[in-house]
Amino acid sequence: MIERAAYIGGCDGVAVILSAELIETDPMGTMPHALILILGDTVEAIKAFDEVIDKKVKRVALIDTFNDEKFEAIRVAEAMKGRLYAVRLDTPASRRGNFYRIFEEVRWELDLRGFKDVKLFASGGLDEKEVMELKPLVDAFGVGTCISNAPVVDFAMDIMEIQGKPMAKRGKWSGAKDILRCRKCGNDKIAPLKGVPKQEIGNKKCACGGNYQGLLQPLIHKGKVVRKLPKPKALREHVVKQLGNVSLLPVK
Amino acid sequence: MIERAAYIGGCDGVAVILSAELIETDPMGTMPHALILILGDTVEAIKAFDEVIDKKVKRVALIDTFNDEKFEAIRVAEAMKGRLYAVRLDTPASRRGNFYRIFEEVRWELDLRGFKDVKLFASGGLDEKEVMELKPLVDAFGVGTCISNAPVVDFAMDIMEIQGKPMAKRGKWSGAKDILRCRKCGNDKIAPLKGVPKQEIGNKKCACGGNYQGLLQPLIHKGKVVRKLPKPKALREHVVKQLGNVSLLPVK
Amino acid sequence: MIERAAYIGGCDGVAVILSAELIETDPMGTMPHALILILGDTVEAIKAFDEVIDKKVKRVALIDTFNDEKFEAIRVAEAMKGRLYAVRLDTPASRRGNFYRIFEEVRWELDLRGFKDVKLFASGGLDEKEVMELKPLVDAFGVGTCISNAPVVDFAMDIMEIQGKPMAKRGKWSGAKDILRCRKCGNDKIAPLKGVPKQEIGNKKCACGGNYQGLLQPLIHKGKVVRKLPKPKALREHVVKQLGNVSLLPVK
Amino acid sequence: MIERAAYIGGCDGVAVILSAELIETDPMGTMPHALILILGDTVEAIKAFDEVIDKKVKRVALIDTFNDEKFEAIRVAEAMKGRLYAVRLDTPASRRGNFYRIFEEVRWELDLRGFKDVKLFASGGLDEKEVMELKPLVDAFGVGTCISNAPVVDFAMDIMEIQGKPMAKRGKWSGAKDILRCRKCGNDKIAPLKGVPKQEIGNKKCACGGNYQGLLQPLIHKGKVVRKLPKPKALREHVVKQLGNVSLLPVK
Amino acid sequence: MIERAAYIGGCDGVAVILSAELIETDPMGTMPHALILILGDTVEAIKAFDEVIDKKVKRVALIDTFNDEKFEAIRVAEAMKGRLYAVRLDTPASRRGNFYRIFEEVRWELDLRGFKDVKLFASGGLDEKEVMELKPLVDAFGVGTCISNAPVVDFAMDIMEIQGKPMAKRGKWSGAKDILRCRKCGNDKIAPLKGVPKQEIGNKKCACGGNYQGLLQPLIHKGKVVRKLPKPKALREHVVKQLGNVSLLPVK
Amino acid sequence: MIERAAYIGGCDGVAVILSAELIETDPMGTMPHALILILGDTVEAIKAFDEVIDKKVKRVALIDTFNDEKFEAIRVAEAMKGRLYAVRLDTPASRRGNFYRIFEEVRWELDLRGFKDVKLFASGGLDEKEVMELKPLVDAFGVGTCISNAPVVDFAMDIMEIQGKPMAKRGKWSGAKDILRCRKCGNDKIAPLKGVPKQEIGNKKCACGGNYQGLLQPLIHKGKVVRKLPKPKALREHVVKQLGNVSLLPVK
Repeated sequence: MIERAAYIGGCDGVAVILSAELIETDPMGTMPHALILILGDTVEAIKAFDEVIDKKVKRVALIDTFNDEKFEAIRVAEAMKGRLYAVRLDTPASRRGNFYRIFEEVRWELDLRGFKDVKLFASGGLDEKEVMELKPLVDAFGVGTCISNAPVVDFAMDIMEIQGKPMAKRGKWSGAKDILRCRKCGNDKIAPLKGVPKQEIGNKKCACGGNYQGLLQPLIHKGKVVRKLPKPKALREHVVKQLGNVSLLPVK
Repeated sequence: MIERAAYIGGCDGVAVILSAELIETDPMGTMPHALILILGDTVEAIKAFDEVIDKKVKRVALIDTFNDEKFEAIRVAEAMKGRLYAVRLDTPASRRGNFYRIFEEVRWELDLRGFKDVKLFASGGLDEKEVMELKPLVDAFGVGTCISNAPVVDFAMDIMEIQGKPMAKRGKWSGAKDILRCRKCGNDKIAPLKGVPKQEIGNKKCACGGNYQGLLQPLIHKGKVVRKLPKPKALREHVVKQLGNVSLLPVK
Repeated sequence: MIERAAYIGGCDGVAVILSAELIETDPMGTMPHALILILGDTVEAIKAFDEVIDKKVKRVALIDTFNDEKFEAIRVAEAMKGRLYAVRLDTPASRRGNFYRIFEEVRWELDLRGFKDVKLFASGGLDEKEVMELKPLVDAFGVGTCISNAPVVDFAMDIMEIQGKPMAKRGKWSGAKDILRCRKCGNDKIAPLKGVPKQEIGNKKCACGGNYQGLLQPLIHKGKVVRKLPKPKALREHVVKQLGNVSLLPVK
Repeated sequence: MIERAAYIGGCDGVAVILSAELIETDPMGTMPHALILILGDTVEAIKAFDEVIDKKVKRVALIDTFNDEKFEAIRVAEAMKGRLYAVRLDTPASRRGNFYRIFEEVRWELDLRGFKDVKLFASGGLDEKEVMELKPLVDAFGVGTCISNAPVVDFAMDIMEIQGKPMAKRGKWSGAKDILRCRKCGNDKIAPLKGVPKQEIGNKKCACGGNYQGLLQPLIHKGKVVRKLPKPKALREHVVKQLGNVSLLPVK
Repeated sequence: MIERAAYIGGCDGVAVILSAELIETDPMGTMPHALILILGDTVEAIKAFDEVIDKKVKRVALIDTFNDEKFEAIRVAEAMKGRLYAVRLDTPASRRGNFYRIFEEVRWELDLRGFKDVKLFASGGLDEKEVMELKPLVDAFGVGTCISNAPVVDFAMDIMEIQGKPMAKRGKWSGAKDILRCRKCGNDKIAPLKGVPKQEIGNKKCACGGNYQGLLQPLIHKGKVVRKLPKPKALREHVVKQLGNVSLLPVK
Repeated sequence: MIERAAYIGGCDGVAVILSAELIETDPMGTMPHALILILGDTVEAIKAFDEVIDKKVKRVALIDTFNDEKFEAIRVAEAMKGRLYAVRLDTPASRRGNFYRIFEEVRWELDLRGFKDVKLFASGGLDEKEVMELKPLVDAFGVGTCISNAPVVDFAMDIMEIQGKPMAKRGKWSGAKDILRCRKCGNDKIAPLKGVPKQEIGNKKCACGGNYQGLLQPLIHKGKVVRKLPKPKALREHVVKQLGNVSLLPVK
């Protein structure tokens, strides 16, 4: 229903297959970061995409996974020759000092090498103000969170390891992780899952003197829910009790 | 799910019967404005409620429907003698100059006449700031809109006529109404449904020169949806076309 | 002199008989809250006024004393038939959530019942900004405090009891009262004059540990000033001594 | 009554003889600017004052009339030897860049020459904020306007000519003046009374094209009021008519 | 180079002889405060200037040294008859309450006495905002600090004593001075150089309990640098050590 | 003198050889972007540096030239094994979305792979506020502009081409450029030096209708100044004339 409302409100299309059926149109979208991470290189990924995907789908290379947008844009454009339709910058927030300047630089470098026809796509937490700022340079926008009605709880599904080796896109901490919470003060701690001996975690003490406890516990196992969820009344009591400790929680 | 979340988050109870079942508790609430409007008097309404409702339900009189809270509070307390548990003030926004002062005055008048045990309930668009301000005086709060997650589209179901006679609570315009919209500039107009000859409405011209059109059209008739809803694509075209006229829409 | 200056500055008229003589015009004004409180009902009051007062004086009903302006407006209009010239809303501040909306609602209800000729008067602490806001709806304004030159010490003369029974208009605490001041910290306290045993007041202790003392003492008795006023020098010493305690005074 | 209230509120004394009688004390004050202007020199003035006035009155020299406070302070202190009680600075606003610094400099120069006992008095449009700022340096304050209750219309009685010769204290334009007002746009103009031929004034045209008219007309002649004052009704009509031209009035 | 840049940027001329040679023009400027202080009177100074200086240099009297600008302007204009080209007001900040009003008053008094041709010059810490404000009245501006590129450390060379007698212009504390610094808390103190017995200074204790030390020590004696300056490393250590005491330094 | 002052004020060292001699210490610094651009790879550059430079100089790799700091940090640490002392991030402003988060991520990735001893250096337009923010993570800071006294005209010397091929670090537009200015409206335009036919530049018209003119003209040729610089007077006339056109200059 959210995607239907976005479409009615003026968006050009939607990405989810089921949503596209509901509004009687074709779904649209670009390659994911996962493809690039698995293949290990942006140029390899766009080449593989180009080899396999139906010709009627436009070739858009996602260029923010491993390295700087400027050099990746030059590399994919030169590798794809005339077949590249656009580059998409989903630049992570920590690298987004001046998004306009990054697009300006990418445009300059592409033009300098004769790729004036390659279009620029922007995505990643954009709102109406940023769209207005980027409009003189950018040809298309991928917008999600800011047009949903309710405040969203943002989360991402990202590849963190490939066959046991830490590997994550720019802006993400690589490797499988354990998340620990101090039962006394509520403080959270992130630790690498491997390389830290079990007993070390078990003995970890919070600065407040409390004990840390691992938060990651199995919910589904072999297709079955294996954890028993508490009743509303018990949940409420847990919440009300925690509210009494609120002043102990550290502000991040 | 919203009421379940509210309960888990610390609220004392919920009003909808189905929600109460979900969280395995009894529903709670007070009499509606509709009861008072139908019976025509606040004292009559609390008396009827007292006569019929199970003794284990506390007697709470809603006292903002017809007249000023101060005098209604005195009237219901004197009529109910010792059986009144609380008075509830759902005072409409246009009369809510200083909600704290109104409660202070009601408390004074009840105490002066010996009703120190009658509690005070507040409701109506309250947020956490107002609850903190009223807390020294008020014993309970009815809170809705401000703890829902998404921005809500506020609407109300109110009695406007009783057997053809205009009758509405304080803060509402009484009588059945027609809503007209100018097809040219988008301006809306509210008119009494009766007493205005058909031809007069038909001929009504907007200040911009456009024609008004009635917006109220039947959706369900004898249990069947009688209006055909357009496809997403047609809706989207309608929206995009209207956006082109946005600058013509008057700001209210 | 104040009323003469107000008249010269553009006001239409004045209420005090002596002032009107000074500027060689007839005084003007409406019925007081006292008349309605004594007769016990707004409709009774406008009827009595209509019966007694010279026909050349316009019939203006004051409708904020006991109950909500919406229902009182309908009642007086229906009772007076065609003879009502205007309704006056002196709505107390604590009920003045949105004065414009109250007038809009009263106008709607009067028009709906055929009383389009009844005019709307506003009064009560109005300044030039509020007058500009209300002008599209309101036909006349009663303005006082905000056009006096010096900062005024606002006070009101209100009926609080009728033949020993507490009775006050909306926005006022009914009943005769005693005012106590703590001689140590300067804190004030308001208590009902009756029903509180003398010894209880005498023994009342302030939260700061000081003793409360009654501030109400007779000034005039049988037409004679019975209290001896101190000399300027003594008053000055009292003030200077109190200034030393200023930081002890609670902020209300 | 204003001076009585000021005294009760904590002031040390009053200047008007009648006020002092009312509060049963001696009046207090210093020499006026007029004395210095007539004698033509600050030192001459304090010497004359010292010669004539009762010994019990303290010698306070007013030192802002002709020349800079720093040099005048040194001159009066050296001329009066040990008999000078204080110097008073009523420094005009246009010369009051940093009043604290001026007092600091005067204090330094007096101390340097052995006059550590000569006190410093401040006056002239002081409010409670300035008094707090100057307190570390200044021994006494003359305060008027800012402790009156109503907004005052400030005006001053100053000597402008002595025996036909222009002579005014610092901060005032010397010489008798004519004041002209344009009857069309309300603009005012100040011109020297002498040296400007009559016909030139008569022919003066305002920039807006209107004619200027002299505003100074005799009110009292040989002890009798010689101008007939208009009735309130006529004054009111004049004011209302002028309000219609308000947008034409130039902002100064 | 600074003066060359100022000239290129639009200034009319420069004051330093060497700078003028660099830009191939004549230097310009007015008499210094020193001349007036030495001769002891503004009128004497402009007369001496007029007697000695080449006729092609315009006669501009500096009139803020001893006494108020209003009276000094009248005195120099009357003394110089038709030969005075302009008066220059370098009014000290502490006397600059409303610079525009001072110029307006000086203009009035000069015009009233027939000196309409005498021009007005302004100087002293002016920036572009003040120049715009004064422009309607003032004929020329002397601007320095505000058009230099780097933040300047303002300092002034002023006569403080003449043949052992304290004498300084308005806005300056006269007499030679000693400057003391507390070695413990860093607080500074200014004292007259003479009249304070040596031992008294030596024994002076700061309010913090530390000892004061005189900061004025000879740098050059008979043309030779007599103080040994520390190496950068020693200076750096001194600075870093002082930074540790920063919180002890009083804010002025 | 600037570097001497910085050192005295508490900086640890300076980079210019002459400055270091003046303060009697060794100069310090890291490799330049130029070395990396010439060698074409960050790892090659640190290896070459390691091979050639005196062992007493610590190995600090500059890692923001070509690619993302996260991956470059991992690469140089793995290539240098235990010999790497620190990585320096001079991240360009357009990529500096959240500098703290970038350091946090680099720290995580280095620690995860066992490089807990590799230190983090930050540089590039840092001021005292940013230093305080980064301090919990960063071990050293390179600070320049923000501690100079005068406002600086920032400029950079960067490699733009290598043997005729466009090549520039992240944040810079690669390739030699021509700069054109419209003689009519003052607008500037940047164009690639090569690949744009001469006649096309010559014919370029500004949007305002004026002609563009190339600004890059030789100043020094074979060690001699070949352009004749105008006299101050001519420069001043040019500036004053341009000021008359200021309102025509476009705001960037």
